[in-house]
Amino acid sequence: MSRLTGVGVSSGRASGPVARVADPLPEPPATPAPTDPTAEAERIRPAADAVAERLFQRAARVEGDAKAVLETTAAMAMDPALISQAEQQVTARSLPAPRAIFEAANGFADALRAAGGYMAERARDVQDVRDRIIAELHGVTPPGVPELERPSVLLARDLAPADTADLDPGLVLALVTEEGGPTSHTAILARALGIPAVVAVRGVLEAPDAVGAVVDGDSGEVEISGEEVAVQAAERAAAVEWNGIGATADGEPVKVIANVGSAADARAAADAGAQGIGLFRTEFCYLAADDEPSVETQRAAYREVLEPFAGKPVVVRTLDAGADKPLAFLDMGVEPNPALGVRGLRVAFDRPDLLDRQLAAIAGAAADSGAEVSVMAPMVATAAEAAWFAERVRAAGLPRAGVMIEIPAAALSAPEILAAVDFVSIGTNDLAQYVFAADRMAGALAELNDPWQPALLRLIAQVGEAGRELGKPVGVCGEAASDPQLAGVLAGLGATSLSMAGAAVPAVGAALAEHPMAAFRQAAEAALATSTPAEARKAAKSALAS
Amino acid sequence: MSRLTGVGVSSGRASGPVARVADPLPEPPATPAPTDPTAEAERIRPAADAVAERLFQRAARVEGDAKAVLETTAAMAMDPALISQAEQQVTARSLPAPRAIFEAANGFADALRAAGGYMAERARDVQDVRDRIIAELHGVTPPGVPELERPSVLLARDLAPADTADLDPGLVLALVTEEGGPTSHTAILARALGIPAVVAVRGVLEAPDAVGAVVDGDSGEVEISGEEVAVQAAERAAAVEWNGIGATADGEPVKVIANVGSAADARAAADAGAQGIGLFRTEFCYLAADDEPSVETQRAAYREVLEPFAGKPVVVRTLDAGADKPLAFLDMGVEPNPALGVRGLRVAFDRPDLLDRQLAAIAGAAADSGAEVSVMAPMVATAAEAAWFAERVRAAGLPRAGVMIEIPAAALSAPEILAAVDFVSIGTNDLAQYVFAADRMAGALAELNDPWQPALLRLIAQVGEAGRELGKPVGVCGEAASDPQLAGVLAGLGATSLSMAGAAVPAVGAALAEHPMAAFRQAAEAALATSTPAEARKAAKSALAS
Repeated sequence: MSRLTGVGVSSGRASGPVARVADPLPEPPATPAPTDPTAEAERIRPAADAVAERLFQRAARVEGDAKAVLETTAAMAMDPALISQAEQQVTARSLPAPRAIFEAANGFADALRAAGGYMAERARDVQDVRDRIIAELHGVTPPGVPELERPSVLLARDLAPADTADLDPGLVLALVTEEGGPTSHTAILARALGIPAVVAVRGVLEAPDAVGAVVDGDSGEVEISGEEVAVQAAERAAAVEWNGIGATADGEPVKVIANVGSAADARAAADAGAQGIGLFRTEFCYLAADDEPSVETQRAAYREVLEPFAGKPVVVRTLDAGADKPLAFLDMGVEPNPALGVRGLRVAFDRPDLLDRQLAAIAGAAADSGAEVSVMAPMVATAAEAAWFAERVRAAGLPRAGVMIEIPAAALSAPEILAAVDFVSIGTNDLAQYVFAADRMAGALAELNDPWQPALLRLIAQVGEAGRELGKPVGVCGEAASDPQLAGVLAGLGATSLSMAGAAVPAVGAALAEHPMAAFRQAAEAALATSTPAEARKAAKSALAS
Repeated sequence: MSRLTGVGVSSGRASGPVARVADPLPEPPATPAPTDPTAEAERIRPAADAVAERLFQRAARVEGDAKAVLETTAAMAMDPALISQAEQQVTARSLPAPRAIFEAANGFADALRAAGGYMAERARDVQDVRDRIIAELHGVTPPGVPELERPSVLLARDLAPADTADLDPGLVLALVTEEGGPTSHTAILARALGIPAVVAVRGVLEAPDAVGAVVDGDSGEVEISGEEVAVQAAERAAAVEWNGIGATADGEPVKVIANVGSAADARAAADAGAQGIGLFRTEFCYLAADDEPSVETQRAAYREVLEPFAGKPVVVRTLDAGADKPLAFLDMGVEPNPALGVRGLRVAFDRPDLLDRQLAAIAGAAADSGAEVSVMAPMVATAAEAAWFAERVRAAGLPRAGVMIEIPAAALSAPEILAAVDFVSIGTNDLAQYVFAADRMAGALAELNDPWQPALLRLIAQVGEAGRELGKPVGVCGEAASDPQLAGVLAGLGATSLSMAGAAVPAVGAALAEHPMAAFRQAAEAALATSTPAEARKAAKSALAS
């Protein structure tokens, strides 16, 4: 049995059998040439048949849409044109079989993409089939989240946003990753599902015979066992008592609102009692599209998200794309450091018409839904950029413009920026990444991305102070806001709203109601005066206990 | 004629014929297969012969080492084993000729690298020959800096550090780049050579018929002409009068010291009158090595750099490597955002022995040379990291430990960090990159990397304030220090030393002597109160003029 320690990012304790998320396969090399090309070519069809067979088996066990999807994918794996093209690549070009199926499938995927529309959406399925056949040829587990057949602890290098789609939340007991940090997708996902998670557990993928695991999302401890471990789900926190009104014990209002990225998120957030939406990520509307979606398409998509919050405040963030979040029609090119590149509002400086069309769609959806819509821009660095954005928002007939504070320079210019806009919202995930020059996805640097880092809290305090002086709202919409212990500290630093994954809303609302604002201000002061995250946590806790 | 505007990064005006630095060639694709492989294979030998012929011609025009290098490279281009392997790749695998020479040369380079030592150093020559033959097959200009035959204005996408080696400084009138920013290598190089430069000139590479150019490194204006333009070198600033003592007009000391990366740099800096070295980059000692250089090798290399400064202060920076500055023996892997990854001191957390060996070599070289050596660490984010480093420096018997302030968090934690070390040095290039979340090499974001950005100046002011309170030195060693107008403002913000490329030393020394410290403090206050770089420049200038 190995005991390992990482960074606990989602509270609770759970145990059960381990299910491993296989790493993506590397691109198969074009060499060495097979010694017997004919024999090599003959390996392809049986591998494809085995993949199809397993997909049909899975299809037989489910119903409805899922069945149809699996059957279609299985049929694709047996496509005679794909198989014979791959075989030809082996015999004519002396390529190894995995490379041949790789190239043949890519040719198909390109053709589908060129055809556009429904066909283009199938390109990803072809790539999925391609990777399954390659894994079969190599005799390894296909990449991605495995199909869970019983409640399991998921063990992964890190989870990508795409992995989420394959994941059955009802069967995941806990998440453990070798990489990732407190603001990685794994952490965000775990908090949204309300299951324990530990990230940056170095060495966990090398643990021999990982059969069962015990995961403590509070201490960050993970026990990996070579034997079966009894299934125990985390005790979800006893249903917290929250009256649905975001405020401190002495009645100072701090809005408790939600981060959403789809209509389903919005409905769940409304059910959880969120007082509004603090961050509506609009990327979902663009991600699957080969071309920019029309204003009407966008308007209808946004309306669906806004409707559950009719009469309530909703902050819509404009498109946050870039080299790290590529969109087919934007053609962003490759950047050596995409997180430091042309992304967010920066994309709009060269293409203001793209922004204007999105603003028109948002204005339309606001009218359709009756939500109290504000709009904010991602990746703003200077007051001049903020003013440029606010002007376009007002020109679109929208009443309130704000910006994200996620670049250190924006925090350092908070007074000038707040003078140019109606509100700001601090994105702690990216802000921490830049303040510490530490990629939020890098496991080795996870400790630097801890939202309790005093240097980060100091910068948040500067923004809070500017908000108080100018009498304008300062929200926090990074995942820091979903930590009930940190929520009160953020309020003490001057946050007038906290926005988080819907699942965290009741716990944060209840935590705010536990103490008066003066106590949270003292806790914040105590945390600011420390020099490590652990000291900050401790100082805040004892300030509140006294 | 086209008039274009970029960001002027090195002062002066020059004109002359244009010489174009060709972009690196993309990796040649393995498809489409040639319709006639035999004919395709026959294209290789004449291309290789043409490359060899041109190299022999160049060799005939020079003497000594350069002749030998060029003749060796020419011979390599005609290597019968290389040619016949490439021909076989075409006929046996139906590869296009450029891909075939690419693969054959890479095989040779790998074998040389595996052989190690002198042979390994030849691997780069094979790649050079490879790229020349590929360019010949495509009928395009080979990549890299062209051999200049007369004084010219160099026009490039951007210059890489490696390009510098091929550049004859006596023949370069000015540098103009499409990309790059105020802190890119192009800017650093131009200031070091004292020639005008304009970077981030969007569209300049597409200007039709670029035959001649007029470059204004102050206004950032570039005129590209279809006709020859008379050669006019920049008037080097009239030999500035500087008494060699870094101080304001009222005698407040501000040390004027140099950034160096080699023994030649150090000798030039001493000749220019630098009072010491504020940043000795030790990477040069590791870059060419396949294995970690021994302590004795390092000690001898460092001694050579330190000797010109016997009896004077020298700040040695420990190894700053990472995924963006890869070293063969470190095996750093690939990171999605190398600038936000494991680099600088972060490498040492997992390999403290590497740091300890370097510290031992530095201690030895300090004793050998008689220089007053201090040591500082790159990429420090927290006070805990600074304390960890200082402990190892003291354990190595070195008297003074400091850290770079180049991560925003370090600036925000300056009081705690200064409590743990003896001094700090602000690296404005990287600090600006992180404060603005803007890659310093990205042309589109050059304006954000302007060292006059008020948000950057505010952070520098926080560090200066902490230095004053604790009575400890605060240096500035980014390229910001080499701007004579900014130098006084930095002193006013609390910098006690300014370190820059040797060529800028006299101009900065003279600029500091022009005004009393109180005037520089007023200029700094005026700049801090603005919200754009242009306003900051103007405010500082008028504060000093009044």
